[in-house]
Amino acid sequence: MPLIALLTDYGYTDTYVAQLKAVLMNLCGTAQFLDLTHGVPPQNVRSGAYLLSTAIPYLPEGTLIIAIVDPGVGTERRAVAVRTARYIYFAPDNGLLSLALLKDPPLHAIVLDNPRYHLPEVSATFHGRDLFAPACAHHANGVPLEQLGSAIDPATLCTLPNLEPEQTPTQIVCAPLHIDGFGNVVFNLREERFLRWRQPEHLVEVKLNGERTLPLVRTFGEVPWRAPLAYFGSNRYLEVAINGGSAHHTLGIDEQTRLWVLQKPIYHMPTVVPG
Amino acid sequence: MPLIALLTDYGYTDTYVAQLKAVLMNLCGTAQFLDLTHGVPPQNVRSGAYLLSTAIPYLPEGTLIIAIVDPGVGTERRAVAVRTARYIYFAPDNGLLSLALLKDPPLHAIVLDNPRYHLPEVSATFHGRDLFAPACAHHANGVPLEQLGSAIDPATLCTLPNLEPEQTPTQIVCAPLHIDGFGNVVFNLREERFLRWRQPEHLVEVKLNGERTLPLVRTFGEVPWRAPLAYFGSNRYLEVAINGGSAHHTLGIDEQTRLWVLQKPIYHMPTVVPG
Amino acid sequence: MPLIALLTDYGYTDTYVAQLKAVLMNLCGTAQFLDLTHGVPPQNVRSGAYLLSTAIPYLPEGTLIIAIVDPGVGTERRAVAVRTARYIYFAPDNGLLSLALLKDPPLHAIVLDNPRYHLPEVSATFHGRDLFAPACAHHANGVPLEQLGSAIDPATLCTLPNLEPEQTPTQIVCAPLHIDGFGNVVFNLREERFLRWRQPEHLVEVKLNGERTLPLVRTFGEVPWRAPLAYFGSNRYLEVAINGGSAHHTLGIDEQTRLWVLQKPIYHMPTVVPG
Repeated sequence: MPLIALLTDYGYTDTYVAQLKAVLMNLCGTAQFLDLTHGVPPQNVRSGAYLLSTAIPYLPEGTLIIAIVDPGVGTERRAVAVRTARYIYFAPDNGLLSLALLKDPPLHAIVLDNPRYHLPEVSATFHGRDLFAPACAHHANGVPLEQLGSAIDPATLCTLPNLEPEQTPTQIVCAPLHIDGFGNVVFNLREERFLRWRQPEHLVEVKLNGERTLPLVRTFGEVPWRAPLAYFGSNRYLEVAINGGSAHHTLGIDEQTRLWVLQKPIYHMPTVVPG
Repeated sequence: MPLIALLTDYGYTDTYVAQLKAVLMNLCGTAQFLDLTHGVPPQNVRSGAYLLSTAIPYLPEGTLIIAIVDPGVGTERRAVAVRTARYIYFAPDNGLLSLALLKDPPLHAIVLDNPRYHLPEVSATFHGRDLFAPACAHHANGVPLEQLGSAIDPATLCTLPNLEPEQTPTQIVCAPLHIDGFGNVVFNLREERFLRWRQPEHLVEVKLNGERTLPLVRTFGEVPWRAPLAYFGSNRYLEVAINGGSAHHTLGIDEQTRLWVLQKPIYHMPTVVPG
Repeated sequence: MPLIALLTDYGYTDTYVAQLKAVLMNLCGTAQFLDLTHGVPPQNVRSGAYLLSTAIPYLPEGTLIIAIVDPGVGTERRAVAVRTARYIYFAPDNGLLSLALLKDPPLHAIVLDNPRYHLPEVSATFHGRDLFAPACAHHANGVPLEQLGSAIDPATLCTLPNLEPEQTPTQIVCAPLHIDGFGNVVFNLREERFLRWRQPEHLVEVKLNGERTLPLVRTFGEVPWRAPLAYFGSNRYLEVAINGGSAHHTLGIDEQTRLWVLQKPIYHMPTVVPG
């Protein structure tokens, strides 16, 4: 039974997700679904890219992934399928896959331009149902990826800006990736990069916009109620939160905010003899 | 494995949907579920009717559909099951099915009045769990529809007002059906009716409340950012939207709003010689 | 196929639920899921305890239940598994199970302290994915509960305050358990307790904070539009609502509110002769 994982910004108050699944079920009656989330902020490709990437370490191998946050639907943007060592992704080529593909590099990509594997009529605004779902279902039924469309160079796939932070030996400047449902803000610094960069006998400081210092801790319980903190979250990215509150609202963090992570050698205060 | 599709206004913050599904699973262990949506605006039968109708073209044949938006639960309103050529519906008889049944006409209907196929105790406020779910599950297990209750004339099923627009050769006056999660407003004009009505060599105009003219386009990209537009959406109804905004809030559209679609012959401006 | 029922406060806008399910699927490919709700108000253990308890009468026997509302994650609070006559629960030991276990008493409990059945790396903030899901999946695969950790006395499991009302022969004082998605407030008085308490030839009164009297009725339709009412809801607890509105907002009900249920003998007014 093929497992199809779904991530969209379609929300929960309409039947868009159900229409897409119904098309999949009609073509591939044995498909099993796993909803990654349908609550990506509308048309927010960057949040979608982050959210998709959080599921990548955990999905069973061979999962077919349909990811759709698609403000350019109906325009020239390409609809693609991408094969990696672990999964096959079906998505608009607008950067939505770019963070997942950093962890799970593309081996092969095609443009989904063979209309034989679309619905007979493709609407201008709902390619999830009319194009991505049928292409995915036909592949689940055994149609090789190569028949779904024309091969393209994976190097031409679209990438989002600021996926990785700017790094020097003494500082890392991080940009936001996503604001979660609790108001915690996820920045683009992975714990493994931080651990490689960090030097022994150095003091680390975390500063919001290079100004306000935040304590870098392991759990919320290490700071007082309503106090801000920085920590590596369960998805191993650096996050900023308020214990019992919303960092997004309280600290006014938005897309322009930068988080500075600094290190400097620990030095011993010279004994000063007062004059 | 019977497929049971579910549409309710029970929301996602309580366990009402899970209680209903648990009753189905207890009685019919092989049932598969497809959630159409549980985010119908509370007690909004008209939105529910529209949302249900959007799934009708896509569901697999033989699907059992439980649809519950039921402000009259516990009163005299009938609980019914309706068989069509494609599906069997279980719903309160309050108009919730009326738009779906325009596309998928009823062949046979019964009132679910046989208490043998309800739960032993039926609450006053939760017929989804106590009456519709067990009736549906028993039918999935092979109990004929006729045993679930008394036959009624499908012509007596309740219908909502203004399901179809008012049409003359020169104008169609449309009423709203639903406001979606993006603030797009769906009107009751289907594209196929529009195409049959439209005459060659005529100019079409779309006017909100007969006043403000909206461009009739195919995609959002054809109008400037934050500008209003009219278009036939992916469910083939005429919709009004704001590119990058909410038509509902920006244009102040509500249930009383009417959208006028007008056509008049194209004529050639006579050459005027200035006096 | 083991059935795993899930209740969390993870919400619908992130991938936390999907990560947890993916871990379950990797370890136990045949697992079936039933989402009780993932919309418990964030970190609200009391609401979570109520919501979990509402599903208990309906779930199939043998269901494995993962329940996570866990403000103390990463601290000293215990992670436990509890076996009852009907189900096995996996949850933090913070009172979340206490209302369910009143209906379905614990027979056996263990602390999930065997790291062999956790993920190799356990984060400080996401035990649902890293600890509860793998422990549950291994048990679904046949690992006995006893191997997942050390036995504890079920009597030591944490209990929430005010799960039951304060009762005398003439009054019952009830505390709130949960505010549902419609703004209805659920109090901690079960209908069966009320029926045992109630005496014949007595008049019952329901008073909010011992002051404002509310009509005790069976259905919303028995009071005028926008009027308040008290009734035993579909989960058999006493609820307070506004017909067509939100009792939570309109009546200003919060955690401190108490609902008084009073009874006194019906007596016959003596005929008074005006002087």
